[in-house]
Amino acid sequence: MARNPRYDILFEPVKIGPVTARNRFYQVPHCTGMGVQMPKTLAAMRGVKAEGGWGVVNTEYCSIHPTADDAPYKFCSLWDDDDRKVMATIADAVHEHGALAGCQLWHGGEYVVNRASRLPPISVDGSPAHYLWPLQTRAMDRQDIRELRRWQGEAARRAVQAGFDIVYVYAGHAYLPFQFIARRFNHRSDEYGGALENRVRMLREMIETTRDAIGPNVALAVRFAVDELMGDHGVAAGAEGREVVEMLAELPDLWDVNISQVTNDSMSARFSEEGFQERYVSFVKKVTTKPVVGVGRFTSPDTMVSQIRRGVLDLIGAARPSIADPFLPKKVEEGREDEIRECIGCNICRSCNNEGVPIRCTQNPTMGEEWRRGWHPERVQPRRSDKRVLIVGAGPAGLECAVTLGKRGYEVALADAADEPGGRINAECRLPGLGSYARVRDWRLGQIAKLTQVELYPASRMTAADVLEFGAQHVVIATGARWRRDGVGMASHDPTVAEGAPRIFTPEDIMAGAVPAAPVIVYDEDQYYMGGCLAMKLVQAGLPVALVTPGGEASSYCRMTDEHDKVQARLIELGVEIVSNRQLLGFDGGGARLACVYTGREFRQGAASLVLVTMRRPEGSLYEELAADPAALTAAGIAGLARIGDCLAPGAVVHAVHAGHLHARELDEPAKGDVPYKRERAII
Amino acid sequence: MARNPRYDILFEPVKIGPVTARNRFYQVPHCTGMGVQMPKTLAAMRGVKAEGGWGVVNTEYCSIHPTADDAPYKFCSLWDDDDRKVMATIADAVHEHGALAGCQLWHGGEYVVNRASRLPPISVDGSPAHYLWPLQTRAMDRQDIRELRRWQGEAARRAVQAGFDIVYVYAGHAYLPFQFIARRFNHRSDEYGGALENRVRMLREMIETTRDAIGPNVALAVRFAVDELMGDHGVAAGAEGREVVEMLAELPDLWDVNISQVTNDSMSARFSEEGFQERYVSFVKKVTTKPVVGVGRFTSPDTMVSQIRRGVLDLIGAARPSIADPFLPKKVEEGREDEIRECIGCNICRSCNNEGVPIRCTQNPTMGEEWRRGWHPERVQPRRSDKRVLIVGAGPAGLECAVTLGKRGYEVALADAADEPGGRINAECRLPGLGSYARVRDWRLGQIAKLTQVELYPASRMTAADVLEFGAQHVVIATGARWRRDGVGMASHDPTVAEGAPRIFTPEDIMAGAVPAAPVIVYDEDQYYMGGCLAMKLVQAGLPVALVTPGGEASSYCRMTDEHDKVQARLIELGVEIVSNRQLLGFDGGGARLACVYTGREFRQGAASLVLVTMRRPEGSLYEELAADPAALTAAGIAGLARIGDCLAPGAVVHAVHAGHLHARELDEPAKGDVPYKRERAII
Repeated sequence: MARNPRYDILFEPVKIGPVTARNRFYQVPHCTGMGVQMPKTLAAMRGVKAEGGWGVVNTEYCSIHPTADDAPYKFCSLWDDDDRKVMATIADAVHEHGALAGCQLWHGGEYVVNRASRLPPISVDGSPAHYLWPLQTRAMDRQDIRELRRWQGEAARRAVQAGFDIVYVYAGHAYLPFQFIARRFNHRSDEYGGALENRVRMLREMIETTRDAIGPNVALAVRFAVDELMGDHGVAAGAEGREVVEMLAELPDLWDVNISQVTNDSMSARFSEEGFQERYVSFVKKVTTKPVVGVGRFTSPDTMVSQIRRGVLDLIGAARPSIADPFLPKKVEEGREDEIRECIGCNICRSCNNEGVPIRCTQNPTMGEEWRRGWHPERVQPRRSDKRVLIVGAGPAGLECAVTLGKRGYEVALADAADEPGGRINAECRLPGLGSYARVRDWRLGQIAKLTQVELYPASRMTAADVLEFGAQHVVIATGARWRRDGVGMASHDPTVAEGAPRIFTPEDIMAGAVPAAPVIVYDEDQYYMGGCLAMKLVQAGLPVALVTPGGEASSYCRMTDEHDKVQARLIELGVEIVSNRQLLGFDGGGARLACVYTGREFRQGAASLVLVTMRRPEGSLYEELAADPAALTAAGIAGLARIGDCLAPGAVVHAVHAGHLHARELDEPAKGDVPYKRERAII
Repeated sequence: MARNPRYDILFEPVKIGPVTARNRFYQVPHCTGMGVQMPKTLAAMRGVKAEGGWGVVNTEYCSIHPTADDAPYKFCSLWDDDDRKVMATIADAVHEHGALAGCQLWHGGEYVVNRASRLPPISVDGSPAHYLWPLQTRAMDRQDIRELRRWQGEAARRAVQAGFDIVYVYAGHAYLPFQFIARRFNHRSDEYGGALENRVRMLREMIETTRDAIGPNVALAVRFAVDELMGDHGVAAGAEGREVVEMLAELPDLWDVNISQVTNDSMSARFSEEGFQERYVSFVKKVTTKPVVGVGRFTSPDTMVSQIRRGVLDLIGAARPSIADPFLPKKVEEGREDEIRECIGCNICRSCNNEGVPIRCTQNPTMGEEWRRGWHPERVQPRRSDKRVLIVGAGPAGLECAVTLGKRGYEVALADAADEPGGRINAECRLPGLGSYARVRDWRLGQIAKLTQVELYPASRMTAADVLEFGAQHVVIATGARWRRDGVGMASHDPTVAEGAPRIFTPEDIMAGAVPAAPVIVYDEDQYYMGGCLAMKLVQAGLPVALVTPGGEASSYCRMTDEHDKVQARLIELGVEIVSNRQLLGFDGGGARLACVYTGREFRQGAASLVLVTMRRPEGSLYEELAADPAALTAAGIAGLARIGDCLAPGAVVHAVHAGHLHARELDEPAKGDVPYKRERAII
């Protein structure tokens, strides 16, 4: 199809100093959990972005020296020529598809603790490291400042040798050059401390050093956080954030601007809307003639056009949207913008990085699988048989499986008991802040609508007899899971309350509109979003709520999705009582018996009702009934029976989508053996 | 020197099935934070253990299948033949020095979450994973049980091909075969659940499978946790723990027995004494004729002999003692048992593993540096000059530097202002539970006593003039650090209280015997052991104490040292009020002004005195005064001036010892460049 002329502006080339981006789609640097330790994984992933049409594809943070060692988190580095060879493979993969390759040189200062290099962390004025770590930093002296410039210069030279077109000075996310700028980090009394002009000196010098190192044919980008969302305590767009950009306005070839810390920059959909950074970064274009890139979880080409037309940005920066759909630019270019797989803002990608493993994506199950499994986000291999496939359950796993099998050319019937397909998504996307989760369902329904070989059967509860009679040769059970009513979970593998006891609710009950008697305990062993969302929903409905959890805080897993501070603050502000470190022992209709997880001491928490968020039970009966009678399957011509997603192992949506995709990719393929993917290996 | 005949028994060979250990020193499997991703680092480290005289050297946990994927933690694996080639390098390194090599095959069951392999975790009965993770496990069916045996068998065959002499079935630390045994994990209703005989079936079958796979020339070890320290809730030595060993008594060639979980097995010195596991494991030898190995942080050869003579153990197992002194057996063999560098039980080694990076050791700074820096725990390169070295400060950094320089042959003077050398150790080793930390000081003083070229000058406070007059050509400043009195720390880089204000104490004040007015706030931003230890000391002295911290719990960093649960429980049991998530804003002599770290809301906590455990300030004035006058240094003939340890970057003792060692190793050596060590690299 032809491109909508409304979007032509997005495909104008943009000059960035001596280089030119082919369009305005700019994949800003983002973490991957891969780094130089996983060069093939990383190169393949970045290459797919370039293939998908991004005009610029950047690396993640690329350390310039062993004093910036973020192990066990995986990062890039240009410490020496061996690193250069690795990084060249990344640049090559990007160039292969016609994009510019950018390298985000990085020093974390007091934000790294050098767990592997074992060097004392350095900082502006000698302070504890930002992360809990029993080693303070040492204050940089004059020699250290000279060294920092030398490291930046040498890393920049290596980046150029490795083939990068854009080299960064990174003063975002409160990393070292930013630490010089922000007053609270900088108590120096020399020419690098005091007045803002002095605090900016380090960044200015690093720009000069980098410019000298990269020469005339490579562009220099500055990534700078213009606001930290902490008012007077930090850099603010209305004050020093703006002044810094004004001071250095014409020095870089590109301004890459955002807000800090990472948890603000990558704010999840629970706490931010598309384009949420505009109010902070919109001044930048007014004070520089250089192109400006910014982010805001942009997935709508209309919003992107608006950003350009209104003079907010020159380049549309994207991290998460480029993860969810590496082919976003191509789809706009080809008039297929309705096929964009939009980021839902769940921050599972961030959780992987925070866990120290390669990133995944709820919407894009191929993320991180490009090299090791050879998965492409847009291409699947053709079907190997004429099997007709029946999928029972149109939740995330079933939907993804149907779409992918359909694209492979299989004839697929997708049946669901409910009137509306979508499974858990239908209820969960109505929880506070989770509206965008509906995109998981909607994108797949949109795809199915275009796949003539996939037929959707809503309101079709399937019994085992129905399945046997259906006439499918391959049957996939994706019937999901339901929250347990008996208190079994991580803390207790045995029931703590009687199933069916009164005044006890599951998340499904509350999402379906049940109103528990007040006061309510939401007992959260799951510790991801469900407990916190339910507590918010109930307290917003006027009920007094205590969130009781064996964790040390509310919604502990949300630390991994960069959401925790905001979740806990909002719960407190809404008046939810947070009762941490307490395990449920029982509930008698008037209160819960709790035990301290450290000492076992018992407590009573009064409550008229209890919402149990402990664990989910797979809806496995259909699969089990079918699997129990292999002869019946054979007689029905069913050669394969499988279960995927929550009805096998209940997980987050990301797990269900991946399971659906994996099953569809592997149908009729030769068995992979015990290790179903390639691994990066160390030289022995 | 000759071996003390009292210790001859430790050097008797021990037959382990078809193989024979040359002595009774047995390095049990222990984590390293290295794994197959760092094969050279790992092989060099295990090789040094073998060189140091251990009769058996084992690997860490070695995964048998991608469903046992512990990423980002580093582990060994034998998933395929590529893994086999890596593991062979480990076995080779061990064999090179005449030890037997053991391989601890492992499946974690519900204790792994497969962050990198992306496979659903498997478990006995389908339960949440043990770690906070938004994906539950799937219950193993019959096919999975067959597969588990197959994986174990194939990994065992690969282990034999790789050259290992001993292959493990690992039912310790609550991993998968143990999960079948422990009632709380096993709700199966088939022949693998119910009566103990059924719950033991999986372990029995894995032993049989492994025996078949390894053939007649390789030994089979079972590692089994006989007690979980949770009474009736878990396996207990007085009940099913014993029954399991009785049932399987003669099946393995070796019983490797311990207590579970890992945090109990590796209990720190704060919570356990040498030999603390005896009461649990001593029954084992009574019910089997096979050799038995157990652990207990054994560092005293007399204790070891007693364990053998009293029939508790046949082989002296060691993890941490073999890390602190890889040459422990050689030293006993050579009559140098007074030179053993005894483990202090601080669990910094565990913290590294829990952080996902290679292990370090407070006592042994060469741990993890064997390959990358070429450091040997017992050998140093000879001096390259006749420089006389003055070290100012006989804390951990200064002591280690003096010892290492002395061994290199340098003439060293070590001066300290205090009457007793030892620095911070002298006060800290009198805190509750930290007595063994004195070993850091005592081992080094013992070494210095033997090094004629090292002279110790206690009670010698050195001014800059003293240093210049001393006649040294190289000066090392190791003057340590002191806790701040102004509230500056991680939460606030600006003072929160006036320095010198009344009723405010530092840890040094309390350790020196100051008795604050009651009630007391111990304000802990450091969050390692100091705040918790001081709170214990003060509450045990009868003072009401609140431990206030911006952390979510008391002594948060102790999670990394496997101590947190015990610290928090003891604080609660002693009656310390734990006030978490609160940042200090000020103190007026009658109470502290606190702010919620999430919302900024203010609170007041009444207190008559405040102990500040925020951060430490380097004692840098001597260094600075000297460094400020290069001409005076030159005139005095001082060619080199350096500062090391806490007076550069205050840290834990491990950092100071490493800094002292590093400086001594590098004196007069050619400069290393920006990357001062080798790195393991991925194949590109």
